[in-house]
Amino acid sequence: MKKTLTALCAILIAAPATANVPPAQPRPTLENQADMALANDGVAWDFVEGITTEVGQRQAGTEAEARGRAWAVQWLRANGFANVADEPYMMSTWVPGEPGRAEIVSPFPQSLAVAPLGDTASTGPEGITAEVVMFRNVAELVAAPEGSLKGKIAFVSNTMTPTQDGSQYGFAGPTRWVAAGIAAQKGALATVIKSVGTDDHRNPHTGGTTFPEGVTPTPAGALSNPDAANLERMFARAKGKPITMKLVLTPRFLGETQSGNVVGEIVGRNPSLPPVLLACHLDSWWLGTGAIDDGAGCAIIAAAASRVAKAGQPLRTIRVLFAGAEETGLWGSKAYSAAHIDEPIAVGLESDFGADRIWRFDSNFRETNPALHKKIAAAVARFGVSSGNDVATGGADINIVRDQKGALIDLQQDGTRYFDLHHTPDDTLDKIDIVQLRQNVAVWTQVVGILANEPAPILTGAPSPSAPPIM
Amino acid sequence: MKKTLTALCAILIAAPATANVPPAQPRPTLENQADMALANDGVAWDFVEGITTEVGQRQAGTEAEARGRAWAVQWLRANGFANVADEPYMMSTWVPGEPGRAEIVSPFPQSLAVAPLGDTASTGPEGITAEVVMFRNVAELVAAPEGSLKGKIAFVSNTMTPTQDGSQYGFAGPTRWVAAGIAAQKGALATVIKSVGTDDHRNPHTGGTTFPEGVTPTPAGALSNPDAANLERMFARAKGKPITMKLVLTPRFLGETQSGNVVGEIVGRNPSLPPVLLACHLDSWWLGTGAIDDGAGCAIIAAAASRVAKAGQPLRTIRVLFAGAEETGLWGSKAYSAAHIDEPIAVGLESDFGADRIWRFDSNFRETNPALHKKIAAAVARFGVSSGNDVATGGADINIVRDQKGALIDLQQDGTRYFDLHHTPDDTLDKIDIVQLRQNVAVWTQVVGILANEPAPILTGAPSPSAPPIM
Repeated sequence: MKKTLTALCAILIAAPATANVPPAQPRPTLENQADMALANDGVAWDFVEGITTEVGQRQAGTEAEARGRAWAVQWLRANGFANVADEPYMMSTWVPGEPGRAEIVSPFPQSLAVAPLGDTASTGPEGITAEVVMFRNVAELVAAPEGSLKGKIAFVSNTMTPTQDGSQYGFAGPTRWVAAGIAAQKGALATVIKSVGTDDHRNPHTGGTTFPEGVTPTPAGALSNPDAANLERMFARAKGKPITMKLVLTPRFLGETQSGNVVGEIVGRNPSLPPVLLACHLDSWWLGTGAIDDGAGCAIIAAAASRVAKAGQPLRTIRVLFAGAEETGLWGSKAYSAAHIDEPIAVGLESDFGADRIWRFDSNFRETNPALHKKIAAAVARFGVSSGNDVATGGADINIVRDQKGALIDLQQDGTRYFDLHHTPDDTLDKIDIVQLRQNVAVWTQVVGILANEPAPILTGAPSPSAPPIM
Repeated sequence: MKKTLTALCAILIAAPATANVPPAQPRPTLENQADMALANDGVAWDFVEGITTEVGQRQAGTEAEARGRAWAVQWLRANGFANVADEPYMMSTWVPGEPGRAEIVSPFPQSLAVAPLGDTASTGPEGITAEVVMFRNVAELVAAPEGSLKGKIAFVSNTMTPTQDGSQYGFAGPTRWVAAGIAAQKGALATVIKSVGTDDHRNPHTGGTTFPEGVTPTPAGALSNPDAANLERMFARAKGKPITMKLVLTPRFLGETQSGNVVGEIVGRNPSLPPVLLACHLDSWWLGTGAIDDGAGCAIIAAAASRVAKAGQPLRTIRVLFAGAEETGLWGSKAYSAAHIDEPIAVGLESDFGADRIWRFDSNFRETNPALHKKIAAAVARFGVSSGNDVATGGADINIVRDQKGALIDLQQDGTRYFDLHHTPDDTLDKIDIVQLRQNVAVWTQVVGILANEPAPILTGAPSPSAPPIM
């Protein structure tokens, strides 16, 4: 690989000077830029510190998300991005209402911490009071007889274990994704779940849920893990006596509101070549300030794009997409694809899994373009990143690349801590480890720099088949 | 020490059989009981699991605290304690009202997590909106000119570091104990503080505060640490522009209500000897379920007392005192002392610092009764407990022993994690490590067993001088 890198350096050194680099200085190479990012990047931190401090939570479709877009537009312009725009689209907007309340009425009166799930209905301000029926997982709920939950509150309590690759989200996630809909079909008035999360704090994990076609949405909320564990113990101690809960959740739909995708570019030397698309999402759930989900992702891609520019104007344009309204249904991702489907993308990458260290890299062209895959693998090895055998699926915000059946790269982050914080009030700046954040910027700088200076098509042949993304 | 222990074993073996031990079996010694506690005690867990599950939060002076007393009375009776009683007293009762709300109105609108401090006033349901003035610590606040806070909200943001012995509570605590009163004297409408706590969760640490004589209480609340850090960053980013906060805190005083102290005894062979008093408190702040503060303490002392009884009826009576209303002003401790001041206590010990491992033991008779101090030190060494050079001060709930200038022992627990949880919603059962809880029961069993079988007075001569307790 040494020869290849030397050749790449020669190309970069030959590129015309940008405004950011004084012409008298020796031009830093891409490798130098990546190494400098690892040592002392401050750009990503500036972004995520700024948006969490000056904007805070950015619930999809609300004025807070709009303030987030305005803030991001200004930041991109101040940081040397061209063609910065806020591309509007309309969406159906759900808001959480007043803080949720859950109280055990009998036999063991006490309050439990609860938060409503996205797209669920209101109990009304007076709440509903009903007997709770416990299920240990979705399979038990599915096995409950039709109509057996009539007039009841379903409680599904499935425990999630931390995993480095985040794979247990697929095991625990259905509790949130489908339990409320299944319980509603069996007559339940409402559903509460144990949070889909791996922490032990009194901070419920919200997130979207879905109701099957024709099923009227019911109220549904997530209990914090300590509260769900407490409710489990109540069932053990009640010895068959009914457990009654009062639940007050007051979310509502605002109807259609305007949201938007923020885009910006590092314009390439040959803008007629398909661009490299870097994506993240700008919205967050209302509970936290969207630091790890996904302020950090936007910070990483923006910092990396601007680092690549510092190494010399790239061949291809690098476009950053700060998608809107990911959390409540990929509204921004879908709108971006619909608006730009006829503009081919060379390759798409997303950062949306926190700010911890990248440890593995996957592509969907390992078999069809092995030379490029190997080149990237060799370039990121010095950051402790291995080449994986999985097929990259891309993130939720790059629907356009999947719709185009294009090239994808996944830079896999360490997710061991991610589901401690995901969709909770605890998603705040202090959870970001700046050393690991910088490693992300370094790896992204290296990878994006290679891709943006690749003259040949990145995907040669059909992409390897991949699974759909998970929110 | 071997000879002494052998002698003690001989005494225990010679003692009459209790109802708990089948007479045909060889009687377990005190040492065996302590070792069994370490290996597999389930009594302490049963207590703390039960009270946190079946009662939950037990705010001082409220009906929830009364349910806690009823639960504890029943538990003590079911677990072989004699002379179980709920001794009533009257107290002035403060309740927190609706969940607190703090919102930055400008320049960076967003919500911050806040909880009212004990004994503070209400903003009224409409709240108050005012400019925030930041101080890094109480000394800075004290230095502010008289009247300079008129119409303002004071914000005192002092950071606390974890310490094994909990000593940094003395450094950080004044922010909570006195800042609101000082700010009120300088004209502040209200005060918010960075939580006196060492965690990074969106869970404010409440606790009592005080206003000087003649100063009208103002509203005051604790921000969670991530929120206080965010507000600090806002000051850095606002560059002198005023920061305006809307604060809604609605605590109120209920006037005089009835509370009580729950007591129970393991009656000694010679009830005319002064008893050994083991204390904890039954109330908790409303936010959590009072698992580590102080369900665990009550669990530990009750389990230890009942273990000592299993080793044979002790010479002296062991009395457990589950004090009421400690958090809001030691109401139970003071009432107990007032009611029983004429009944001499042989020695007092309290457990009120969580459920983590005991690592050191202090007494206030190391110099006046060195033989007994050394005997205890030798007996607990096998549990990893060292003998300390500090003078035991006793806990908040054994005012009676200090009032009697009596003997005190402190079994020092590891407090490294304690201020992550102290006075927060996160004070829940899952934070208790059963292995460390059992070590507490083992050490307490050993120590209480020695004390309760000590025929001579425990304090010979005056106690060493000691500092007053900290809530």
